[in-house]
Formats: sequence, structure tokens, C-alpha cells
Amino acid sequence: MLDQYIKLYESKTAKSRSLFDQATKTFPGGVNHNIRYFEPYPFFTQKAHGKHLWDVDNNKYTDYWMGHWSLILGHSHDVIVGALKAKVPEGTIFGTANELSVRLAQQISKIVPRAEMVRFSTTGSEATMYAVRLARAFTNKRVIAKIEGGWHGFNTTLLKSVNFPFDEDEGSGLLEEEQKYVVSIPFNDLEASIKILNSVKDDLACIIVEPLLGGAGCIPPEKDYLHGLQEYARKIGALFILDEIVTGFRLSLKGAQDIFSLEPDLFTLGKIVGGGLPIGVVCGKKEIMQLSDPKRKKNQRCSIGGGTFAANPLSMATGLATLVHLVGKNPRIYDKINKLGEEARRGIDKVMNENGVKVKTTGMGSLFLTHFLTDKVSDVRNARDAASCNIDLQKAYHFALMAKHGIFFLPHKMGAISVEHDSNDIKQLVDASEQVAGEIQVS
Amino acid sequence: MLDQYIKLYESKTAKSRSLFDQATKTFPGGVNHNIRYFEPYPFFTQKAHGKHLWDVDNNKYTDYWMGHWSLILGHSHDVIVGALKAKVPEGTIFGTANELSVRLAQQISKIVPRAEMVRFSTTGSEATMYAVRLARAFTNKRVIAKIEGGWHGFNTTLLKSVNFPFDEDEGSGLLEEEQKYVVSIPFNDLEASIKILNSVKDDLACIIVEPLLGGAGCIPPEKDYLHGLQEYARKIGALFILDEIVTGFRLSLKGAQDIFSLEPDLFTLGKIVGGGLPIGVVCGKKEIMQLSDPKRKKNQRCSIGGGTFAANPLSMATGLATLVHLVGKNPRIYDKINKLGEEARRGIDKVMNENGVKVKTTGMGSLFLTHFLTDKVSDVRNARDAASCNIDLQKAYHFALMAKHGIFFLPHKMGAISVEHDSNDIKQLVDASEQVAGEIQVS
Repeated sequence: MLDQYIKLYESKTAKSRSLFDQATKTFPGGVNHNIRYFEPYPFFTQKAHGKHLWDVDNNKYTDYWMGHWSLILGHSHDVIVGALKAKVPEGTIFGTANELSVRLAQQISKIVPRAEMVRFSTTGSEATMYAVRLARAFTNKRVIAKIEGGWHGFNTTLLKSVNFPFDEDEGSGLLEEEQKYVVSIPFNDLEASIKILNSVKDDLACIIVEPLLGGAGCIPPEKDYLHGLQEYARKIGALFILDEIVTGFRLSLKGAQDIFSLEPDLFTLGKIVGGGLPIGVVCGKKEIMQLSDPKRKKNQRCSIGGGTFAANPLSMATGLATLVHLVGKNPRIYDKINKLGEEARRGIDKVMNENGVKVKTTGMGSLFLTHFLTDKVSDVRNARDAASCNIDLQKAYHFALMAKHGIFFLPHKMGAISVEHDSNDIKQLVDASEQVAGEIQVS
Repeated sequence: MLDQYIKLYESKTAKSRSLFDQATKTFPGGVNHNIRYFEPYPFFTQKAHGKHLWDVDNNKYTDYWMGHWSLILGHSHDVIVGALKAKVPEGTIFGTANELSVRLAQQISKIVPRAEMVRFSTTGSEATMYAVRLARAFTNKRVIAKIEGGWHGFNTTLLKSVNFPFDEDEGSGLLEEEQKYVVSIPFNDLEASIKILNSVKDDLACIIVEPLLGGAGCIPPEKDYLHGLQEYARKIGALFILDEIVTGFRLSLKGAQDIFSLEPDLFTLGKIVGGGLPIGVVCGKKEIMQLSDPKRKKNQRCSIGGGTFAANPLSMATGLATLVHLVGKNPRIYDKINKLGEEARRGIDKVMNENGVKVKTTGMGSLFLTHFLTDKVSDVRNARDAASCNIDLQKAYHFALMAKHGIFFLPHKMGAISVEHDSNDIKQLVDASEQVAGEIQVS
């Protein structure tokens, strides 16, 4: 089945192929982020607007990748274009304090009060690196517990147990010593998690967790799992860190911590909070955050960035414009995209399973991903389950949607719905899924 | 002397003070980058254009901080504003391959041919982290040698031996194990450096060095020092990594590696190459860079970012517009700003020393920093020398320039000249320095 779609794709993407040939000469593998590569070659995006991407061959795609799930308002929304038009002529980087950064931080704290204090960085990888550094500084302990398959960016500390096989190093150039104090626990298995945590509890600095396991399979938390981790951390004096880079301002205005009534000591934000421009945020309890105060002496300070582009006026402007817009349209925006997410999950599962293709579309709110079940995997509760599903079929499904139906998921990655999507888009997606299911059965 | 300037500053910056009061409630220390704080409080920038910053109280400053030295074309240059106006309506982040990233990478490789292959990240901290990870992967060795006082961003690996006292940890939350394989060598002392390198040579993965020691004091390399390190690295099979985040496209179009005829295996870029928007670049030899090819199996790959915002179309557009502009105006732009730099160094030293204030303004090309010598320090050749100068006086000098003369250096940090500056600006700077020198003598 896949062969015919590859031929179709190649026939429609000659310019992308030519650009990819050039790209492979300069970029290792032709891309600037590992997950952006897919076979036979990724298309090259020409422009994006609303829910659509256009590639350089003028193929139009309904986009569910949405800039690594950053764009809850869709591409180049008026409020973003407007904010940038106003601010660009006044400077893109000051390297000094600026009022917009205060307003954005105040807006974050107003919406999510557990952000007692805030520090802006430029990327999510930086934000999570700083969060665990703060945890070690505050607790004076060393061990970081993360979820098996949990993704917190490319920083050295947390680049462990991310990709299947999880017990294997995440490639070369990472030292055993650097990751010696990082342990992994299985998502949604509190008993097994606590057993592992108990083995390190005297030296446990923090537990860092995505409330919905994102890159590893779009898997929601089961009842009491996150609460169990939080309670455990509190009991032994470790910090509970929620990585809301994907879920913040996505699952609800107040994020996953509000939905699940969680009380993280620190949490990280990114993606949506930058309105489509680079940002990372570490925030949380004042007593912890204050360790990074630059007025402290070097040996009493936890040094975190910052960075050259931290709190730059453009990211602050687009972030603030996004949050103000979301507040104004709350809860309508979330009601809408969450409902569409539910329609997608139900609709895809129904047509696939009716056509004899056993799938489970996991997710929550506006995030979803279709897993192709096997004889051995009948449910997807953690990263190991997701990795044990039929990944080839999952990639072929996403590829078919892209090549034949003009519907773009980054193959193998979860989709995100923006306010620009509507019920017709979901209907098209479900109909296309049904067609693909038929073809899977035939092949 | 300083007291009167603080009073003057406070009298002119009431709105900044009020904003800083708000900022301290939300940001630890009121800022988003440690070095952006200075006493009694930093001003808040309202807008920037050309060589000028305006604060929220409408004070106008001639800016030598230039966005962490990123803005060689000055603030909001027409080519940047034009590039953004054209691209913003077409999307700020695609999360997919795009043609502009190929064009920017090709432009980099054309100007600096040692960039055989390129990988974009979003920040310089990320780029240096990926460079040393690649070095460890390629050599299968562990030790990273860096310069005492050398600054390569906030990443965990390289955040060692940055601030005086250099032997003391860079604060809490960093583990001994994480930095166990990082050693520091003194800038401009080849013999002492090689002695230290010899002690780790069997396990040496790389030497990473800023060609001009930047954050630690704007100190140029002495004859043969960098060549000596390069030769040593080559001899023992370690990589020689040049961190050109500050110096790339700054000291000359082709950077410091061309000026000093260096042949780094890898080098990093940032700041100027993004044209004022977030960027980091790791580049160099194909055989090393290719270790990061996503098509390699996990255990044969060196996993580097990337990141959500890597190669985003706005940073690519402003970076490309900047390089095209620089190529078109080369060598005039560099002749101009380098000459101005020389005028600043000579002029400041002349008026200061004639007024009995012993200083040395170090630097190269368009970068410069005035050090206040003491009985114990008569020259500034490395980070220890710079840290042993009279830092209080240096801060007071920069503060006086800012408060009284409308000339902005981030106190204690080197200045950068843009194409927007001219001889009159340097004359004003020198005249103001003379006035401050007189007041230092009186106080």
C-alpha cells in the first residue's frame, strides 16, 4: 500500500525533492530536527495560513502538526501578525529589561496562579534544564525521576530513556556520568513507579512529568497516577515538576494542572505561550525560583538562563497577544477544539475498527494520535505500549493522509487542533481515514 | 562619584523604577538574564532604532550593548524590517523543512567554507552543547577543555569556570559528576595550557575556545596561542572547536577563523547570523556533523537538536537578509566599524591615562572594553587579569556614561559598534570618558 502513496507523493512534490537534494548536502539528513525527516523526503513548506500549509509545489495541506503543536490560533493569525507589525519596527532584541516581558509574566501568573515567579528562556529544552537544576539546588539532592519515553528536549540531563528501546542510550556523545542520576519510571503504573522511586528516595531531587505523555504517544494520565507521584514527592521532600510545554494553554486555559487539580512546585511552559515565536518558561514557587536571583552570591545562586534572546520583545508581544486572545475567548475556544478532538478520536476509531483495522486513538482535548494495535498490544497506557504498536502502519496511515488527502500529520506524531479547524475538517479526516483503512485491508 | 550618578539616574527613570518594582515581584531579581541586572535597577527599554535605545521615560541612549552584540546592522534595520514584513503573514513557525533554511545554510557555507555541514538550533547555549556532544561522539573520548572564564552559554556541561573565582562552582544545582570531565585552561598562556591538556590528553575529546575571549573581558588572542591549541588538538586526535557566536560575521565577514587562519573541526555561530532573531548554529566537517543524521540508528547517532523553533522561517529570513547585506557591503562595513573600534580604544585610553586614570581598552575590530588597571594588574591578557582589575570603577564608568551622557554599555560588559555608529559617536564617547575620568580623579 505504501508504495503507491510514495509514488503519488513523489509525483506531486518535485520541487521539494530538488530542495531536499540540496538540503542533504548541507544539513545532516537534510533536516534541522530529527523528527522532521520522513521517507522518502519531507516536503518543503512555502507558506502557512490558518489551518493550512502550502508546500513549494503548491500542494495544500490541512495541518495537524501546527508547528510542533504550538499554534492554537492557527498559522499567522491576525492577532500575531498585528502584534508583530506593531513591534518589529521598534526593535527585535533589546538585551535589556522591557515592559512586555513584565506584562506577559503577569498574565501568566494571573491565569495560572502557581506561577508565583517566572523566568523566560528561549526554548523548552532550556526551560526543563533550568527546572531540574533549580530542583537540585533547592533540595540539595541529585536524582531526577522522569517518565519512560518522556520528552523534555535535547538538553543533556533529560535526554535519557526517550526513544525505544528505552534502556538503550540516546545515542553517542552522552556520558554515563552526566545521566547517572536520572531514573525512569513507567507512565500510568504507580506501583511500579513508586518501587523505582523508593530505590532512590534519599537522593531524589524531583519528579518531572508531562501530564499527558506527548512525543511518546499522546497518552493521558489515568486516575490518581499524577496525584500519586505528587503525593510521593511531597512526602519525601522532592519537588514535583509538571512539564506543561505542550499542555499549557492547550488542554484548558489553565492547563493540565487545573484540569487534574495538581499543585506542582515548578512547571515549564513553551510553544503556545510564545504565540509562534521562540520561548521557554520555568515558573513556580517563589521560594524555589528566588534561588536564581542574580543578586545572590555565586555560591548561593542557582545559575539559570536567560540567554541572549530571552524575553525578546517579539516573543513577548506574540505571547501576550495570544494569551489575551485566549482569555477573551475562554471557554469557547477550548470547548470548540476539545469537542473537535473528541469527534476525531471517536470518528477515526469507529471507521477504522469497522473496517477491521484495530486502532486506538488516544489523547485528550485537542490532541490525538491513532495507534495501530497488534495481537500483543490491546491498549496504550504508556510509552512501551505505544512503541509496541504497529509503527510502520501508523507512519503509512499518516503518509497516506498527506499524499492522497492533503491532511498533514508529521508521520508518527500526534496531531493538534487549532481554533481554525472545524467539524468539516474532522469529517474529512475521518472519511480519509476510512478510505485508508479500506486500502490497508486490501494490501 | 557613583552616588551622584545614581541620584541623577533615579531622577530620570521613574517609570523604569516603577516597572522594576513590578518586575521583582514576578522575575527573580527582576530580570530574565543575570547580566541584565545592575544597581540600583536597570532601565526598561521602550523601543530601539538604528544605534539608539529609548527607555520608558523617553531617555535616549547611544547603544553599545546592541542586543548582546547581535546587531551589527543596528536596531530594526530596513533589511530586517523588510524581511519580517514579507514573511510574517506567511507563518512564523512551520515545524517542517523550508527553503529559507537551505538558502541560509548555503550562504553560511559559501562565506565560511569550513561550514561543510550545518545544523540550526534556536540559541547559542544549545549550539555549544551540541558541538561538544558531537566531539565526544566522534572521538569517543570524554574530556572537554575550555578557557578559564570562557562563556558558552547556560548549558550544564559548559557552565564551569565562567565567573571569578574560577575555581568555585558556578552555583548550586550543578553536579560534580556532570562537569567532572571539563577542564579549564588559561587564555593566552600556551605553556600552562598544554601542561593541563597533557594531564588529560588520553581522554581529551575537544578544546572549545572563543577566539576573542568575550564575556570574560573582550581579550584578543596573542600570537600563536590559538594555533598552538589547534596544533595540540590535531596532534593528539582531539577536535578543535571555535565558538564564533560573538565573532562570526563580526570581526570580519569570514569571522575570526579567517583572520587568524584557523582550521576548526567544528564551530558555532549565533547572534549576527540570526539578524536579531533567535538562532544558534553548529557547523563544520562533514564527517563529524553526519553523526547527527536522523537516519542513523539510535545507538549510532549523536542526538542533537533541533528544537521546536529551529530553522523557523522568521529567523532564517532575517539571518539570510543580514548575510546578503553584509556580503554586498563587504569589506566597507568591516573597514568602517573596525576603524571606529580602533578610534574608541585609542581615544578612551588616551584621555583616561592623560587624566591619571590608568586603563587599558582591550578588544579587536568593533568590540572593545575598558579595564581599570591597578597596582597589581598592568595588562589584561586573560580572564583572571580582567577579574583582578578595578571592577567597581569599571561599573561606575559605564554607569556614568549611561546616566549622564546617554551612552549605554551594559555595565561591566564589552561594547559593540554597528554600521549605524559613526565617528561623532566615538568622539562623544571619548569626550564623555574624559569627563568621567576627571570626576574619578576628584572623588
